[in-house]
Amino acid sequence: MGEARLGILGGMGPQATQDFYQRILDMTDAVRDQEHVPTLIWSDTQIPDRTAAILGGGEKAEACYQRLLAGAQLLERAGCTVLAIPCNTSHYFADRLQGELKTLRLVHMVRETAAVMAQSGCRRVGVLATDGTVRTGVYQRECETLGLTCVPLPEEAQKLVMSIIYDEIKRGETGSREKFALIDRCLRRDLGCDGAILGCTELSVYRSYHGLPEYYLDAMDVLARRSITACGYPLRMV
Amino acid sequence: MGEARLGILGGMGPQATQDFYQRILDMTDAVRDQEHVPTLIWSDTQIPDRTAAILGGGEKAEACYQRLLAGAQLLERAGCTVLAIPCNTSHYFADRLQGELKTLRLVHMVRETAAVMAQSGCRRVGVLATDGTVRTGVYQRECETLGLTCVPLPEEAQKLVMSIIYDEIKRGETGSREKFALIDRCLRRDLGCDGAILGCTELSVYRSYHGLPEYYLDAMDVLARRSITACGYPLRMV
Repeated sequence: MGEARLGILGGMGPQATQDFYQRILDMTDAVRDQEHVPTLIWSDTQIPDRTAAILGGGEKAEACYQRLLAGAQLLERAGCTVLAIPCNTSHYFADRLQGELKTLRLVHMVRETAAVMAQSGCRRVGVLATDGTVRTGVYQRECETLGLTCVPLPEEAQKLVMSIIYDEIKRGETGSREKFALIDRCLRRDLGCDGAILGCTELSVYRSYHGLPEYYLDAMDVLARRSITACGYPLRMV
Repeated sequence: MGEARLGILGGMGPQATQDFYQRILDMTDAVRDQEHVPTLIWSDTQIPDRTAAILGGGEKAEACYQRLLAGAQLLERAGCTVLAIPCNTSHYFADRLQGELKTLRLVHMVRETAAVMAQSGCRRVGVLATDGTVRTGVYQRECETLGLTCVPLPEEAQKLVMSIIYDEIKRGETGSREKFALIDRCLRRDLGCDGAILGCTELSVYRSYHGLPEYYLDAMDVLARRSITACGYPLRMV
């Protein structure tokens, strides 16, 4: 084919996938249809819940990985050249997945986000993410490689994060501002973080609805920008 | 595979594709990721402009058709069972396209929309669409088969429709209410239509931004509902 083609492996959840593609469109400097990146989106809603699979371990985790691999290979066979997976938790499998792909290059959402955080001068970082992402330590590992301190949330605050993700956004609601305000106070006052990563696509969806200050770096924004430039398309100046 | 899988052949334009998938998510009765339709979206932004291709005829139209066919076959090979093309103009090629597909079944956006219009009791219908869609007569043919009178817009009103589509929505703007108000007056007062079809996905995007009364039947809504049920998934009750 010869042309750059973005593959989005999504469905985790589908609304986050939708939100991610909107960012691709908004951030590309295009005025005609033909100036947008050709994009194939596989919204595979039948992928098992990633948090449950990874924490369950063994066969459950393996079944989840195999489904992700099958999806990535579908995109590769269909001629995609750059792969974006708008799901932080899945990046637990990222390096193994990249190793099994031939021509498709993964933009590593977690690694790229940690790099932007480090460049911005932050040192103590909070990560808002699912239990699965937190316990697998994907963000912790990438942050510490770059000299950042990744501060874990206390149990109560982590429960609020999970509730916004599972009880609200994944059910099609816009998310509770009251819960988020409690998390915000915990990050800034109790933990003394000088920045925080939105490390779950449902929280990126929350930000789309309500807006959030620059204190929060949205991993989905970082992934969108890096995906567009990896395909050789220009970013819209804001 | 065995499972129903929706294929969306889009990119015409990409924002309309995005808007269409949002409707699929909103209209499906689902509270968990896994209750949504598995969906593969090929946002092929490099398809030549359909209006220009069809009005240009000959090789131009053929090149456009071949690109659409290649996209549909990509979706078919990837295991899709139901095909939705959220682009009215492309339905000029719909029957020929369906004839060349093996296992993938096209939900015919124009035919389904005309059927809903006929069932609602409308008799004199206006169609807001690109010059390409209008001149190819796709809506006219489907409407007349069902006994509806399809009233053509005067040239001035048609120019306003094209301007909203190409000068505004395709450039990422929200569309001019003033222009739409002039079109609305023409349909109701000058032409005496008792209903109108939004027969261009960019006008569906306009409706998402501004809202429109029930007088306007949105072809993209009809396509979304029919696509969900064709995959065997339940519709959300409004």
